[in-house]
Amino acid sequence: MANGYNGKILRVDLSRGTTSVDEPDENFYRQYLGGSGFINYFLLKELKGGEDPLGPENKLVFATGPVTGVPIAGSGRNNVGAKSPLTNGHGSADVGGFWSAELKFAGYDAIIVDGKAKSPVYLWIEDGNVEIKDAQHLWGKTTGDVQKLIQKELGGGGIRVCQIGMGGENQVRYACVINDINHAAGRSGMGAVMGSKNLRAIAVRGHQKVELADAKVVNSLAKALRDAIAARRDTGMSKNGTLGGLVGFNTISNLPTRNFKYGQFEGVDKISADALNEKVLVRRSGCYACPLRCKPEVAVGEPYNVVPLYGGPEYETMGALGSNCGIDNLEAICKANQQCGAYGIDTIATGVTIAFAMECFENGILTQKDTGGMKLNFGNAEAMLQLVEMIARKEGIGELLAEGTARAAKEIGKGAEEFAIHVKGQEVPMHEPRSKPGLGLGYTVSPTGADHCHNIHDHMYSTRVSERMKAMGIFEAVPPQELSATKVKLVINGSLWQHALNCLVFCMFVPFTSDKMVDLVNGITGWNTDYWELMKVSERCITMARAFNVREGMTKADDWLPKRFLTPFDSGPLKGVAIKEEELAQARDTYYGMVGWDNDGKPTLEKLQELGIEWVAEA
Amino acid sequence: MANGYNGKILRVDLSRGTTSVDEPDENFYRQYLGGSGFINYFLLKELKGGEDPLGPENKLVFATGPVTGVPIAGSGRNNVGAKSPLTNGHGSADVGGFWSAELKFAGYDAIIVDGKAKSPVYLWIEDGNVEIKDAQHLWGKTTGDVQKLIQKELGGGGIRVCQIGMGGENQVRYACVINDINHAAGRSGMGAVMGSKNLRAIAVRGHQKVELADAKVVNSLAKALRDAIAARRDTGMSKNGTLGGLVGFNTISNLPTRNFKYGQFEGVDKISADALNEKVLVRRSGCYACPLRCKPEVAVGEPYNVVPLYGGPEYETMGALGSNCGIDNLEAICKANQQCGAYGIDTIATGVTIAFAMECFENGILTQKDTGGMKLNFGNAEAMLQLVEMIARKEGIGELLAEGTARAAKEIGKGAEEFAIHVKGQEVPMHEPRSKPGLGLGYTVSPTGADHCHNIHDHMYSTRVSERMKAMGIFEAVPPQELSATKVKLVINGSLWQHALNCLVFCMFVPFTSDKMVDLVNGITGWNTDYWELMKVSERCITMARAFNVREGMTKADDWLPKRFLTPFDSGPLKGVAIKEEELAQARDTYYGMVGWDNDGKPTLEKLQELGIEWVAEA
Repeated sequence: MANGYNGKILRVDLSRGTTSVDEPDENFYRQYLGGSGFINYFLLKELKGGEDPLGPENKLVFATGPVTGVPIAGSGRNNVGAKSPLTNGHGSADVGGFWSAELKFAGYDAIIVDGKAKSPVYLWIEDGNVEIKDAQHLWGKTTGDVQKLIQKELGGGGIRVCQIGMGGENQVRYACVINDINHAAGRSGMGAVMGSKNLRAIAVRGHQKVELADAKVVNSLAKALRDAIAARRDTGMSKNGTLGGLVGFNTISNLPTRNFKYGQFEGVDKISADALNEKVLVRRSGCYACPLRCKPEVAVGEPYNVVPLYGGPEYETMGALGSNCGIDNLEAICKANQQCGAYGIDTIATGVTIAFAMECFENGILTQKDTGGMKLNFGNAEAMLQLVEMIARKEGIGELLAEGTARAAKEIGKGAEEFAIHVKGQEVPMHEPRSKPGLGLGYTVSPTGADHCHNIHDHMYSTRVSERMKAMGIFEAVPPQELSATKVKLVINGSLWQHALNCLVFCMFVPFTSDKMVDLVNGITGWNTDYWELMKVSERCITMARAFNVREGMTKADDWLPKRFLTPFDSGPLKGVAIKEEELAQARDTYYGMVGWDNDGKPTLEKLQELGIEWVAEA
Repeated sequence: MANGYNGKILRVDLSRGTTSVDEPDENFYRQYLGGSGFINYFLLKELKGGEDPLGPENKLVFATGPVTGVPIAGSGRNNVGAKSPLTNGHGSADVGGFWSAELKFAGYDAIIVDGKAKSPVYLWIEDGNVEIKDAQHLWGKTTGDVQKLIQKELGGGGIRVCQIGMGGENQVRYACVINDINHAAGRSGMGAVMGSKNLRAIAVRGHQKVELADAKVVNSLAKALRDAIAARRDTGMSKNGTLGGLVGFNTISNLPTRNFKYGQFEGVDKISADALNEKVLVRRSGCYACPLRCKPEVAVGEPYNVVPLYGGPEYETMGALGSNCGIDNLEAICKANQQCGAYGIDTIATGVTIAFAMECFENGILTQKDTGGMKLNFGNAEAMLQLVEMIARKEGIGELLAEGTARAAKEIGKGAEEFAIHVKGQEVPMHEPRSKPGLGLGYTVSPTGADHCHNIHDHMYSTRVSERMKAMGIFEAVPPQELSATKVKLVINGSLWQHALNCLVFCMFVPFTSDKMVDLVNGITGWNTDYWELMKVSERCITMARAFNVREGMTKADDWLPKRFLTPFDSGPLKGVAIKEEELAQARDTYYGMVGWDNDGKPTLEKLQELGIEWVAEA
């Protein structure tokens, strides 16, 4: 087995209460690499299609990659995957923290959870040993309390916990999986799947190190990266985290406001990074081995009582629970962020669903009768906070909203669907397709629907992938608003690179170029890989996920954007701008052709053969 | 401009007697790289389709690459391209020697020759200066004499000559272009195009060096390669050249015998490398900067009078003029090789055309009346030698045979077409599709028809490309006789690598892995390229050549093999083995799908867009 891997994949059958270990050969590791690669492989290979995402037959996969746990910034991540209860298709999410590295140190590269425990349990993994332990006493508790209880129960230091909260227990369709209390694998409803299996948490501790083929190379790359980050300690990500982008996004009409009706928010300055840094920030923290420290920890006094334990709102959260709900009350948003973390529900989907409810309310589609008396107007911070509670507990209208916008809109009827801002059932994150049409195309064709974690942004082409494409003469500066074939090519190349990061697994925010990444992978594994091979892994990755959705019956018609983005903004710098239907349809078809899918969006047999995954045709 | 290039492309309009210089930007160089990349670009972009290959409107392109002229083994090469008078489609050939490096030293990366001189001329290029000089006194002379005369006429040492011979003057459709007397750009009839332009030769001398971005890296790679070659000086290519493969090929039924009727030759030992080394070898020589010295120089006394000046028969020549004509007379083959060199006609096409005539004769389709009394039986060495003369001079039946097998068979009728062993009009080289079906597929889909210079061999997958694919887990050992989708993938990956070599331009026989090649290119140019980028250049290359043929009206029906290969061998180790029609059709369609062509074999718009060559759709 190549260095960088344990060569062991843990299987847990919760129905039978058994565990076992797979030891795939090195070819498997090299073809699928890790993270998303593993997840996409196992879900396609081992599910049959048609499963209930919340039934015991669904599988939940936690996967690290060759970079996970290596002492270099960006390496503290893992992916979580399952059939999604939001989209009924391929689901996955990625997450940082410390748990993923600890899992690697404990001897496993991935965990595949199958079946359903009779009553709540948690897993305890230490240096290869696995126990399925009773978790009935943990059920219903906050993530903060559960981590503390588990660490106390198991004893000794250095125990890392990945878990769901009450949202996952209650199978809120957009419940998330939480690492180390304040890192969320937010998208696709992976927490609901974990909850459906009665699995509350996975605690790990390990004492192995990740073996390196060439420690000298790895350490030198790690040091250079550490120095580069240290050199700009007081700026950018280290100063503001992802929230640093908010004011700029507002300027280009990319700050979703009032359920994506607007791209600019009049209260922008109250929810900016400056405001957060000034008013509520306690300190910044980060992930394993990473000096970037991009995550805020905040504190707010009465009446909100926010503690640093749950971190603080980052860009997506600030947009979703703030501007998108028309809310500029920073402290209330911090409280909502804390509650989402304590209950384990995705801040993006929660915010977008609440904004949906608010727009329904303002349009008389939902009334005070439906809300139990609440006035669900945009800007009502208290109502927003109350809905967070009701969603996590599935109380009152929270039960309906816990289904996500797509299902709730269908249930409500009366034209509510117009206000449900999702793709394939996954709520749209805080990037506006009318401002970033390339990203909009990404939402359209992504296996997980509206997902910002493997698509790239029309305004960011000057970095990473495009640097290389520029040098190669195949990069052309395409205006942000353009949705041409050239833009499609950039979207694909960028997305393939993001997929490579999700397989390795490596943080997209750490400044690291593709050639250094190749050196790093070779330094870790002892392979002689290159950018070409990484791109082939990524192509396998998107192709397998696509095949999963085809098997689930998704069609070309599912590759489309909500009507809102095809409707012009009626104010702001992009007034009159919308995604043109014919351009989107053309871009989608061009995307299909470029990645080797037929005109119905199905991977061609020849593409499968070229990628060495002919087995997908049978699956 | 990146190091490794002059940044200058010389244009010569022979109709007007003018010259000019293009200076493309670096993007152009990086997208198309050099060699085949340049040729395929210029032919597609600057011709309109429908031209007479032998008319003044055809263009003849000589192209070097970034590696040409760099002091490292394998760098002494260039490509020659034009619309082919054999195939009426895309034509190109590659060649070694010293001329290509000298052209680079003289300040040009490529030459594009347009129009037709009123009377024979030659070009004289020295350090950027270009003269079109009278060549009437050279017309009709041997290549050996012409080189001597030009060098004397221009004076001083170090002048390198690329030229045609009498075959090119007479527009034998498979006439070749000859560098330094004994290196031939043999395939596709490039010499006939040069002859049609009344251009007898291009003499060059230059005093520049190729500038290197990182001389240390380049020199270290060059030294390692030199040492590796030196370490096996007395074996392999250095001992036997390409002829070393002949006995082994015979064993696996891959030595074309009697017009491809058989794969084994009873006289194999008389034409083997051992026989040549023992009986006629004087010394070995090679190309610029290369210590491999794979080319034989031979001498034979009366009655053949062969001199070392014209080299000696290598594998292709020994097969085509030897076993394939049923001839085991080593000395006569040496003589035929010399005459082909002196007259500038392709030894492969010459041998295969003579074998065709012999089989026609043995079947009564050609008679002594047609041959002027000659008994054209297989094995008749004297008849073969006489035909070489008659073809080059277009005398007697030589005039018909100078048209190549496809046209001659059509003219003869009476079922002669069954014996015309060509693909798209290009005669099949000395590798038997029934023994190497993957190579047979390569012949089928190659833009230049039956061409061994950018296709790879079913028995050679253990080297180069496959080493990498093996490590990646996408290589599966496929039995040589299998023509599965896996084989197609290997053929494509191998062929793309060969195309990369033809763009760089670099010798396929020098042992150099792809990762070292990437280092070399970066060391030369100062770029930050990788295998992925090189593969994209290769994809552009095959796609442009394909588009050229589509424009010329070629269809899927032209992607097929001669009936002979679909007919089982009736003896030998592969008795009963043939290429199965349905397998070949399937493999062809799989190839189309894998490289991004539609089911009619036309590149899809999306593939063009992905490669950044949308302009091809208009061309």
